[in-house]
Amino acid sequence: MISSKFPSTIFYGGDYNPEQWPESVWPEDVRLMKEAGVNLVSVGIFSWARIQPDEHTFDFGWLDRVFDLLWANGISVCLATCTASPPAWMWRKYPNILPEDASGIPYNQGARQHYSPSSSNYRRLAAVFVRKLAERYGKHPALVTWHINNEYACHMNECHNAESTLEFRAWLKRKYGTLEKLNEAWGAAFWSQLYHQWDEVLTPRRAPYHCNPTQQLDFKRFTSDEFLECYLIEHRILREISPAIPITTNFIGFFKPLDYHRWAQEMDYVSWDNYPDPLLGHGAEAYGAVGHDLKRSQKKTMPFVLMEQAPAAVNWRPLNPTKNPGVMRLQSLQAVARGADGVMFFQWRASKAGAEKYHSAMIPHAGVETRTFKEISQLGAELKKLGAVAGTLVKPTVAITFDWDAWWAVELESKVARIDYVAWTQEIHRWFYERNIAVDFVHPEEKLDGYSLVVAPALYLLTKKNADNVTAYVRGGGTLLATYCSAIVDENEHVVLGGYPAWLREALGLWIEEWAVMPETQKNVLKFAGGETCDAKHWCDVIHLEGAKALATFESDFFAGRAAVTENAFGKGAAFYLGTKPDAVGLTRVLEAAVARAKVSPVLKTPANVEVTVREGGGKRFLFVLNHGEAAVEIALGGIAGVELFSGIRATGTLKLAALGAAVVSVE
Amino acid sequence: MISSKFPSTIFYGGDYNPEQWPESVWPEDVRLMKEAGVNLVSVGIFSWARIQPDEHTFDFGWLDRVFDLLWANGISVCLATCTASPPAWMWRKYPNILPEDASGIPYNQGARQHYSPSSSNYRRLAAVFVRKLAERYGKHPALVTWHINNEYACHMNECHNAESTLEFRAWLKRKYGTLEKLNEAWGAAFWSQLYHQWDEVLTPRRAPYHCNPTQQLDFKRFTSDEFLECYLIEHRILREISPAIPITTNFIGFFKPLDYHRWAQEMDYVSWDNYPDPLLGHGAEAYGAVGHDLKRSQKKTMPFVLMEQAPAAVNWRPLNPTKNPGVMRLQSLQAVARGADGVMFFQWRASKAGAEKYHSAMIPHAGVETRTFKEISQLGAELKKLGAVAGTLVKPTVAITFDWDAWWAVELESKVARIDYVAWTQEIHRWFYERNIAVDFVHPEEKLDGYSLVVAPALYLLTKKNADNVTAYVRGGGTLLATYCSAIVDENEHVVLGGYPAWLREALGLWIEEWAVMPETQKNVLKFAGGETCDAKHWCDVIHLEGAKALATFESDFFAGRAAVTENAFGKGAAFYLGTKPDAVGLTRVLEAAVARAKVSPVLKTPANVEVTVREGGGKRFLFVLNHGEAAVEIALGGIAGVELFSGIRATGTLKLAALGAAVVSVE
Amino acid sequence: MISSKFPSTIFYGGDYNPEQWPESVWPEDVRLMKEAGVNLVSVGIFSWARIQPDEHTFDFGWLDRVFDLLWANGISVCLATCTASPPAWMWRKYPNILPEDASGIPYNQGARQHYSPSSSNYRRLAAVFVRKLAERYGKHPALVTWHINNEYACHMNECHNAESTLEFRAWLKRKYGTLEKLNEAWGAAFWSQLYHQWDEVLTPRRAPYHCNPTQQLDFKRFTSDEFLECYLIEHRILREISPAIPITTNFIGFFKPLDYHRWAQEMDYVSWDNYPDPLLGHGAEAYGAVGHDLKRSQKKTMPFVLMEQAPAAVNWRPLNPTKNPGVMRLQSLQAVARGADGVMFFQWRASKAGAEKYHSAMIPHAGVETRTFKEISQLGAELKKLGAVAGTLVKPTVAITFDWDAWWAVELESKVARIDYVAWTQEIHRWFYERNIAVDFVHPEEKLDGYSLVVAPALYLLTKKNADNVTAYVRGGGTLLATYCSAIVDENEHVVLGGYPAWLREALGLWIEEWAVMPETQKNVLKFAGGETCDAKHWCDVIHLEGAKALATFESDFFAGRAAVTENAFGKGAAFYLGTKPDAVGLTRVLEAAVARAKVSPVLKTPANVEVTVREGGGKRFLFVLNHGEAAVEIALGGIAGVELFSGIRATGTLKLAALGAAVVSVE
Repeated sequence: MISSKFPSTIFYGGDYNPEQWPESVWPEDVRLMKEAGVNLVSVGIFSWARIQPDEHTFDFGWLDRVFDLLWANGISVCLATCTASPPAWMWRKYPNILPEDASGIPYNQGARQHYSPSSSNYRRLAAVFVRKLAERYGKHPALVTWHINNEYACHMNECHNAESTLEFRAWLKRKYGTLEKLNEAWGAAFWSQLYHQWDEVLTPRRAPYHCNPTQQLDFKRFTSDEFLECYLIEHRILREISPAIPITTNFIGFFKPLDYHRWAQEMDYVSWDNYPDPLLGHGAEAYGAVGHDLKRSQKKTMPFVLMEQAPAAVNWRPLNPTKNPGVMRLQSLQAVARGADGVMFFQWRASKAGAEKYHSAMIPHAGVETRTFKEISQLGAELKKLGAVAGTLVKPTVAITFDWDAWWAVELESKVARIDYVAWTQEIHRWFYERNIAVDFVHPEEKLDGYSLVVAPALYLLTKKNADNVTAYVRGGGTLLATYCSAIVDENEHVVLGGYPAWLREALGLWIEEWAVMPETQKNVLKFAGGETCDAKHWCDVIHLEGAKALATFESDFFAGRAAVTENAFGKGAAFYLGTKPDAVGLTRVLEAAVARAKVSPVLKTPANVEVTVREGGGKRFLFVLNHGEAAVEIALGGIAGVELFSGIRATGTLKLAALGAAVVSVE
Repeated sequence: MISSKFPSTIFYGGDYNPEQWPESVWPEDVRLMKEAGVNLVSVGIFSWARIQPDEHTFDFGWLDRVFDLLWANGISVCLATCTASPPAWMWRKYPNILPEDASGIPYNQGARQHYSPSSSNYRRLAAVFVRKLAERYGKHPALVTWHINNEYACHMNECHNAESTLEFRAWLKRKYGTLEKLNEAWGAAFWSQLYHQWDEVLTPRRAPYHCNPTQQLDFKRFTSDEFLECYLIEHRILREISPAIPITTNFIGFFKPLDYHRWAQEMDYVSWDNYPDPLLGHGAEAYGAVGHDLKRSQKKTMPFVLMEQAPAAVNWRPLNPTKNPGVMRLQSLQAVARGADGVMFFQWRASKAGAEKYHSAMIPHAGVETRTFKEISQLGAELKKLGAVAGTLVKPTVAITFDWDAWWAVELESKVARIDYVAWTQEIHRWFYERNIAVDFVHPEEKLDGYSLVVAPALYLLTKKNADNVTAYVRGGGTLLATYCSAIVDENEHVVLGGYPAWLREALGLWIEEWAVMPETQKNVLKFAGGETCDAKHWCDVIHLEGAKALATFESDFFAGRAAVTENAFGKGAAFYLGTKPDAVGLTRVLEAAVARAKVSPVLKTPANVEVTVREGGGKRFLFVLNHGEAAVEIALGGIAGVELFSGIRATGTLKLAALGAAVVSVE
Repeated sequence: MISSKFPSTIFYGGDYNPEQWPESVWPEDVRLMKEAGVNLVSVGIFSWARIQPDEHTFDFGWLDRVFDLLWANGISVCLATCTASPPAWMWRKYPNILPEDASGIPYNQGARQHYSPSSSNYRRLAAVFVRKLAERYGKHPALVTWHINNEYACHMNECHNAESTLEFRAWLKRKYGTLEKLNEAWGAAFWSQLYHQWDEVLTPRRAPYHCNPTQQLDFKRFTSDEFLECYLIEHRILREISPAIPITTNFIGFFKPLDYHRWAQEMDYVSWDNYPDPLLGHGAEAYGAVGHDLKRSQKKTMPFVLMEQAPAAVNWRPLNPTKNPGVMRLQSLQAVARGADGVMFFQWRASKAGAEKYHSAMIPHAGVETRTFKEISQLGAELKKLGAVAGTLVKPTVAITFDWDAWWAVELESKVARIDYVAWTQEIHRWFYERNIAVDFVHPEEKLDGYSLVVAPALYLLTKKNADNVTAYVRGGGTLLATYCSAIVDENEHVVLGGYPAWLREALGLWIEEWAVMPETQKNVLKFAGGETCDAKHWCDVIHLEGAKALATFESDFFAGRAAVTENAFGKGAAFYLGTKPDAVGLTRVLEAAVARAKVSPVLKTPANVEVTVREGGGKRFLFVLNHGEAAVEIALGGIAGVELFSGIRATGTLKLAALGAAVVSVE
């Protein structure tokens, strides 16, 4: 559980920015929080300039009063470390905190996040500040959790200034030791890029053409590490001063700049901000589902926290529709259904000024006589009924690989074709999501043998060690489905020679001679063994079988008749390979074959747009049924029965749900 | 009238750049000017480098000869102050005149307008130059009017260099006095933006994300003021040295960077440059009409001057079609019909070199045996017949609000949806234009009680004082029609709490809880009281009535059945509200209701594409009838009769006009 | 012939980058080269950093071993001068080698080509290096040709840094002598751009609006000259040290930054890199054909060399399809058919690292058991059979004008409409290509009287001297077809007054009053003398005939009935004019009329997608027949007969070709 002080609590609340309002408003805030069932608020996200008006002055008085007021009213605090946006005096006194882009053009003060993660001044001043903050509030009884910084790197996600360049060289020295090794790793013999002195090496700045791809890849790793070091500087101070208080920082969803797999290992629990675009329609639920699954997977032993979402509209897209009545509630329950122990919002009270005043809030501009505040209050009451769920986990038998290294590498320039790593991954996730088959994400270095099925979509970069891990998984009895563009390069983005995908060749029982790619307007056709056909688009592997059997072949082009989908018995397991991008019908056929081989089955079969999950642990088991559809549904529960927690009524046989209805059954 | 020396004259001519040609060409120029009926030419627009080859040398000899030649031939001079494009020596000697963009990247010499409006060196050198110019020509008998600079800010419309930053801080100090007030106005408590020293404040430079919106809004105000100060520096010198000569600068149409409402108050008369895109079809006339109306409205007591237009094609759009025969004449007469006392062109003789050589001119590259020169000469002869019109005014009973503050604010980032303030305003204007109902534009601070109807489209920013002005107008008997997204924020772009649009809530008899916005692919439907329906797009207010009655309701979405269009009897007047964007049918229904309530009617009812206006004053009254259509028309004149000025024949009963025909009736 | 040492050889091979591989791989490389029929490899393209690790150290040992290994195995060397990408130490020691864009933002080290062509340090260091290289290998028996630099300007094609600015001023001083002449040429009297001191003049840097067009045009000429000077510095050293070795640099196709017409005059033979996009379908052949014709035309007395092409896919487009089986062979033979004496690839062995690892190579990642290597080997064997072709030429009777000055000028901003000079030129070329009519490109300064027909598409800029050359060609009996937008401006991009196109007015027998341009959605219609009609788009000249007769007239708009296509008997010849852009039917009608008048006929008439060319010389004559189609064809040979070189069988009567088949007949 997130906090041992609240063993049976789903946290509920939001960002609370009292410094935007006269102190006279605060008592009403707290009164309304209690009315809405709020038990936790995030304080201080952007308070640095308010607390520290210059390098040597600190004013905590107002925050003391906020803490005391909340504590007196039984509301706990998630205390942010305030470091996401430095005060204006900092760039004035230390201009080199400002980040620069690849052209050397600085990002200035005026919005937020205007600091280089490599800045020694920023790091030093943040450390001083966080120590003060921790010393003052680290033992306050209202404090439940630390919230370091805010959405690291969300706007400013790489820096090329002088200090970053020095830090990049230092990082490279630590990694490679010698320039010989760097030159080898970067393939620098090409294009006359050999380095003979360390100070010749640059970040991948604006050049006449694409910079060296391994340089770019290392720079992405470096950047993630630099932000992580900022996190760790704060983490270490907080741990030292308040060892019992859990620490997190709020992740964004599928966020490319930071390798959250590495990050999560340094965090006490994972939290994230879920902002699906209402224009996605039912895609908004799929967006939430895959986001929750990714975040949950990054710390598989713990529930996570939904740290931010919007009660209604956001303000930062070109068009910002509201969430219709009932949608916010259902998306909130979805988070819990998929493993969250906290449901939080940005923000408590809508700002009347500033850049986010049109971001919806728990209390809208129009006040509390609004549907938004009523829905907020209803949800608060409902979550109190789910206390027993806290601490339980989701336990999938299917895993999808996800690796930032592979993502970064496959989306570098100068490829055969553009591959959208996340879109392909999410398309496969959605297939399982729509069938109520729970899915974890796994990094290819993780232990895999707990899973019946592992799917590896476009796992382009795969180290020898991780390829061996995957191969051993299959040999030991696992079922693997790898797709085109997997295991092509090693950790330096060097092609592994010897027939693609060389390091999985044995497990898959095939090798690939070349690739044929197509524009959107063209297609090939797959013919399955049973005679059925489907369209194949975008990418075709020209496959040579060496042990695998063809489940489907291409129907046209110069490789007509060659295998497109294969299955290979290997050791105690089986490895499927999908050498093209089939349409939905074809994808289903391939995934059904893999699922059948792996003996995976869904929790319940339901009509479309009904989501079912299970959380379990400590002898408890909860069935979540969420109807995202526009019509009422009736769900056959099979053998499942138990008390439905919102209604208190025992559910058995079938379960009726209104449009946008939800049920949580405490399974007997 | 523009110049008391020419009481019965419509000015006719264009930019004259003799410095582009050998002096031997000048006599032919003047001869052809007389042939074409030209009585005024604009001289010196870009002559600074010709006159002042270095900081301490001035060569006026050639310009003396130009003046004398024109004067000797009875052609008057509109003398430009030459300051729109500084000579190359200036950036070389004073590099800090160069403006910089938000990234700190300079704009260099090479085109035109490469000066920062905040540059003290530019301002100083411009003042020295203008004083010399005024001393030399301020009393010349050929001089009729001053033309300060040229199209201020048309290319370079904001500067972030060091001097501009200092000036911005000074401007803010004058406005706010203290940083506390600035922090409050900017809502700087959010995102840790509080300023504790003045030198921490920046222009809204490139930052990791959107800068503070009030900072951006103030920067727009500052920028407009800085350019205005450049204007005023020159204006004061000219007024001092040649107090009798009227002063103007040429405006562009709906031009965002400069608050022309404030500017016009400092000018003796308004002039502008009308460049409708021929690809607009009949939209080109509507473009001219709304532009003329806006310019005329900025100085309601005076005719304006059409300072520039193209005889045929321009050269600066991606595609530049010509004006077909007759179009240039009709668009010129339109200017007069809507209040202009001058019809001028860019330029007299087509350049053979430089960036604008493919901009058409009164004398084309191919010479005078061309349709263009023939049309120019015909128009010159016709305008002589309209001398009696000079000095009369257009006097509408309908007004549409237009406010740069509202424009700037509503189009800042981070909104619920993008609103195109000008497009919405022009759509409403066009409705009146197509019905021959004359329209003024008004700033919400203006006296409104002379109007029967005031329409306020998306008047997003409205100060308390101006909201009171609008409310008093309705209370006193006026008819108001406000649309969605009006009166949401105050002058600091802070949301006015208490139910949108709080400060118009009483007059409108309603409040709005929230907004639902849609992509282009979606719609709602309006149902009017009589049962008719129309489509509603883009934006829907969720309205609570408190006194107003619904004229139409929404048919779908979660607010189905709620009011979308309302009418509220208030005081002696009435306030309509339009809470969505209806299609053309719906807009007509709403505007017809407002027009009927306000008892507004057109001058004459005419077929499509026939434009009718009235100019009046000093006991005179002129009816303009312009047939923009492709077919001949016959117009019923109702009770109107009088001599048609082009033909000299008395018109009564009906008036026949050929395709592209025009008539001006001196009403008896 | 390219090299007198190999009189009967078609060169075959590719870029060879042994420094990317362990030395143990080299013997296998050479063995496979021999297997594949390779007789020439390009070495050293990007070896500068490998050879020169710092300013004072040179390591040639590895390259000595490469040379000796190749020579020992009978493979010749095309030695690149390595200067296309400077080593990293150079920017570190001499930062001012880095180019800057128009905003002053530098291009950094990291990719390739990060040097300013005006950099004195780059030039000096390149000269030192090339002298060392020439001294070491200039007499090596394996050396066949020098390959200076690589694809000059392909990524970085203009520089505005301080040194370039000084060089630009020096170039202008040499060109104009005085500022008065520069001001006159630039039309600087407009927009206050007069220069009074040389150091006021800038490259056309980022300005508030378009820079002066003549300044831009001169900057393009300057830039081409600066790169050419880099070439010449190397050329002079190589000529001095190894006078017998021919020198080239590899051109790109229709490449705007460099005036290849001027460049080719400084080269011993022309070579270029042909990368048609497979997505073009049959357009890929047309792309190759027009490219080969342009390159061949730039040195009409010599065969050229296809220096680079891809064996299969490239890697640098967004989508990179492969070349299907047979396509690479046919495109290679096309080069020979159109005048090449060498067929080379990038590159020999596919890189496993770096930016171009997914560019296909003669040895793919998957090794030699691949269709690519098999096709490479087959082609090598076939080219050996074509040795007799070496040294022969293609001799067209039709020419199309092509002039970089005209290209640069017509595509500057601020025009009536955008004209795509290359697209229009290539559309006309393709018409001839599809009819097997051989075409040269000519610069308008070239001697024209060897041609029966000269087509001048949009020859916008034409000097008086060149207009006289064209006029004399017609007067002497030639047939000219000029199109709209020809002969509008002189070398300074000043409009030539007196009715467009003034300097061709006499030859064409007409003058143009004005232009009407249309958006893509509009059209006019042409009616030919015989009554047939076709669509006309984009551009219409309003033509006054003075001697020419109308072949077609416009059907609509205000110039309906006026001539659109004309023919004028002039001297002993005839001049056609096309005053609009007709559809394909109309274009054929116009071109057929011109072809008929000029008595031009094709080599052979063939089905679609069959390409026929003739190479001849020294009493030999070879007929190339290439079937790019998807079906077998049978070609009637007319009176042609002779031995087909691939099969060794005598062809007579008809020739059968399979899909993608090719034949070369040594004509009796």
